[in-house]
Amino acid sequence: MTRGRMEAFSDGVIAIILTIMVLELRPPEGSGLADLRPLLPKLSSYVLSFTYLAIYWNNHHHLLHAVERVDGKVLWANVALLFWLSLIPFTTAWMGEHGAAAVPVAVYGAVLLASALAYFGLTRALLGIHAPRSRLALALGADRKGRWSTAAYAAAVPLAFVHQAIALAIYVGVAVVWLVPDSRFERGAAAEPP
Amino acid sequence: MTRGRMEAFSDGVIAIILTIMVLELRPPEGSGLADLRPLLPKLSSYVLSFTYLAIYWNNHHHLLHAVERVDGKVLWANVALLFWLSLIPFTTAWMGEHGAAAVPVAVYGAVLLASALAYFGLTRALLGIHAPRSRLALALGADRKGRWSTAAYAAAVPLAFVHQAIALAIYVGVAVVWLVPDSRFERGAAAEPP
Amino acid sequence: MTRGRMEAFSDGVIAIILTIMVLELRPPEGSGLADLRPLLPKLSSYVLSFTYLAIYWNNHHHLLHAVERVDGKVLWANVALLFWLSLIPFTTAWMGEHGAAAVPVAVYGAVLLASALAYFGLTRALLGIHAPRSRLALALGADRKGRWSTAAYAAAVPLAFVHQAIALAIYVGVAVVWLVPDSRFERGAAAEPP
Amino acid sequence: MTRGRMEAFSDGVIAIILTIMVLELRPPEGSGLADLRPLLPKLSSYVLSFTYLAIYWNNHHHLLHAVERVDGKVLWANVALLFWLSLIPFTTAWMGEHGAAAVPVAVYGAVLLASALAYFGLTRALLGIHAPRSRLALALGADRKGRWSTAAYAAAVPLAFVHQAIALAIYVGVAVVWLVPDSRFERGAAAEPP
Repeated sequence: MTRGRMEAFSDGVIAIILTIMVLELRPPEGSGLADLRPLLPKLSSYVLSFTYLAIYWNNHHHLLHAVERVDGKVLWANVALLFWLSLIPFTTAWMGEHGAAAVPVAVYGAVLLASALAYFGLTRALLGIHAPRSRLALALGADRKGRWSTAAYAAAVPLAFVHQAIALAIYVGVAVVWLVPDSRFERGAAAEPP
Repeated sequence: MTRGRMEAFSDGVIAIILTIMVLELRPPEGSGLADLRPLLPKLSSYVLSFTYLAIYWNNHHHLLHAVERVDGKVLWANVALLFWLSLIPFTTAWMGEHGAAAVPVAVYGAVLLASALAYFGLTRALLGIHAPRSRLALALGADRKGRWSTAAYAAAVPLAFVHQAIALAIYVGVAVVWLVPDSRFERGAAAEPP
Repeated sequence: MTRGRMEAFSDGVIAIILTIMVLELRPPEGSGLADLRPLLPKLSSYVLSFTYLAIYWNNHHHLLHAVERVDGKVLWANVALLFWLSLIPFTTAWMGEHGAAAVPVAVYGAVLLASALAYFGLTRALLGIHAPRSRLALALGADRKGRWSTAAYAAAVPLAFVHQAIALAIYVGVAVVWLVPDSRFERGAAAEPP
Repeated sequence: MTRGRMEAFSDGVIAIILTIMVLELRPPEGSGLADLRPLLPKLSSYVLSFTYLAIYWNNHHHLLHAVERVDGKVLWANVALLFWLSLIPFTTAWMGEHGAAAVPVAVYGAVLLASALAYFGLTRALLGIHAPRSRLALALGADRKGRWSTAAYAAAVPLAFVHQAIALAIYVGVAVVWLVPDSRFERGAAAEPP
C-alpha cells in the first residue's frame, strides 16, 4: 500500500517533470525550415534531459520492484530525489539557451550530481531496513555503475569551466552507458542512478 | 507489476501532453465574438492533436491489454514513443500559428510519422518476447491499418510542399479512419498506431 | 482492467485541467494588498471552474463505480467529455479577464453545456451495454437533476446577452445545487453532469 | 475503491501543484554565476513550498492509510483541501518576487492557514464516520502538533506586518518540526496538517 502510493506519486511527478520541459520549446516566429535551426540547442538539451528522466524512472521502477517495505525516512529520501529531479527543467532551459557557456553547463551537471546523490541516499535508506541477503541488497550489490556515474558528474562540473564540450560529452556518455547494455535490467535488478 | 507501472506512467505522460496543449489557446485580448475567429486555426490543430493523442492512448491501452510480459527493450521502446508524442504540443502550436505554411504542416506530419514508427517499434519489441500464437500476436495480425497510416504520413510530409491542404486532408483522414469503425476495438484487439 | 485504466486516465486529465488553471493567476506586479484586487474576477472564475471540475470528477467517479463493462464507444464518449472539460481553462481565463462582457460569459456557458451533453452521451453509451435493471440503470434513473442543469446552461447562454449577471447567477446556482444536498452520493448512486 | 480513487486523484493534483511551481523559476537572461543570484528568493520560496506540499502529501497518505470508509462529505472536504493547496504556486510566486514585502508573506501564511483548516476539516469529516476507538481516531489522538501549527500560521499572518522575517521564521520552523522527528510516521499513524 505505502510502497504503491510512493510509486504512484513518484511516477506522477516524474511524468510531469518530463512533459513540462516541452513547454520550453516555443514555436518559432517564422514558418520556414531555417526557423527551426535556432531551436536545435534547446531540442538537444530536451532530448538529453528526457533521456535522463526516463533512465531515472526506469531505475526507480526496478529499485522499488525489489523493495519489501518503506518507512518515513525512505519517503523523505524519495522526496529529496524528486526535488532535485524537479530542477532539471530549469537547468535544461538555461543550458538550452546558453549551450556554449560554462556556467549553465556546470549547473546542469551539479543538478545531475545532486540527483545521483539523492538516489544514492534513497538506496541507503532502503538498505537500512532490508536484510543484508534481501533481494534488494543482492540486486544493488557493489553498485559500480552508480558510483562511477556519480564520480563522472562530480568531474564534469569543474571540467565545464575548462571546456563545456568536455562536460557535455560526459553527460551524453553516462546516459548512453545507462541506456545501452544493462543486462541487470533483464534480471529485474534494482538499478542505480544514471 | 512492471506492466502496470509502465501503463500508469504512459497514461500520466499522455494525459499531461494532451492537457498542456490547451495552454497554447491563449484567451484573446478583446471580449467580442469576432475575437475568437483568429483562434480558429489553433483550435482546429488542438482538436486534431487531441484526437490523435486519444487514439494513441486508446491503442496503447488495447495493445498492453494483450501483453503478457515486458522487458527492458519494451520499456525503452515505450519511452521512445512517449518522446515523439511529447513533441506534438510543439508541432501543434507551430502549425496552429502558421496553418497556411508548408513547413509547419510537414513537420507536424514528420512527428506523426516518427510516432507511428516508434509505435511499430514497440509492437516489434513486444512480439519479440511473445509466442507466435500468443493473444498479442494474433491481435496484431498483419496490421494493415498500421502500415497504411504510416505510409500515409510518409506521403503527407513531401505533399505538404505541393499544397499544405493535401497533407492536412491526410492527417484528418487517417484520424477519421481510426475513429470511425474499428470493430477490432470491440474484440479487445491490440490496435496499431493511428 | 479496461474500466480501471479509463478511470486512471480520466483522473489524470481532470487533475491536470484543474491544476493548470492556477497558472492563469499571475502574481501581481506590486506587493500591496490593493494589488490583489484586480485579481478578484480571475480568482472568482477560478473558484467556479475548480468547483465544476471537482463536481465532474465526483460524478464521473460515482458513475464509473456502478459500471460493469465498457466498450470502444464508451471510451470515445469519455474522450469527448474530457475534450470539452479541457476547454474550461481557456473559457475560465477569458471570463476572468472580461468578467463584465457578454461573449466570454456566454462562451463559458456554451462549454459547460457541451460538457453536460458529452456527459449525457457517456451515460447513454454506458446504458446501451448495461441491462435495464442493472445497478447503473437504477442509479441513473430519470436523472432529473442532469436534465435540469443541462437546460439551465442552454438558457444561460442567450441570457448572457441580456445581462451577464443572469448567466453567472445560473452557473453559480447550478454548482451550488450539485454541491449541497445530494443524498444520491451517499447511496453511491451514479450521478449526472452538473 | 472509492478511497483508492480519492487517493489517486489527490496524488495527481498534489504532484502537479508541486511540479508546476518550477515553471516559475525562469532561466536568467545571462549565463554567468552572478545571474543566478536574483533567483535565490524564488528558489528559497520554491524549496519551502515544495517541502510543505511534500509534508501534506506524506500526512495525507498516512491519514488515508488508517481510513476505513469515505462518504460524500469526505470527498468534498478533500476537494477543499486540494483547492487551498492549489493556491500555493500563486503565493509562492508572489512571495518569491517580493520576499521582503509584508503582504505577500502574510498572504502566503494565510493560504497555509486555510490549508491547515481544510485538513482539519477533512479529519473531522473522517472522524464523523469512524468509531471513537477506530484506528483512525486513535492515530489522530489529541493532535497537538496539528493544533500548534495551525495556531502558528494564525500568528504569523499579522506578525508579517511587524516584520516579515518573523513570519518566514515561523513557516520554516513549522516545516522543520514536521520534517525532523515525527516518530508517529514510523508507527503508521495518521498525521495532521503541517
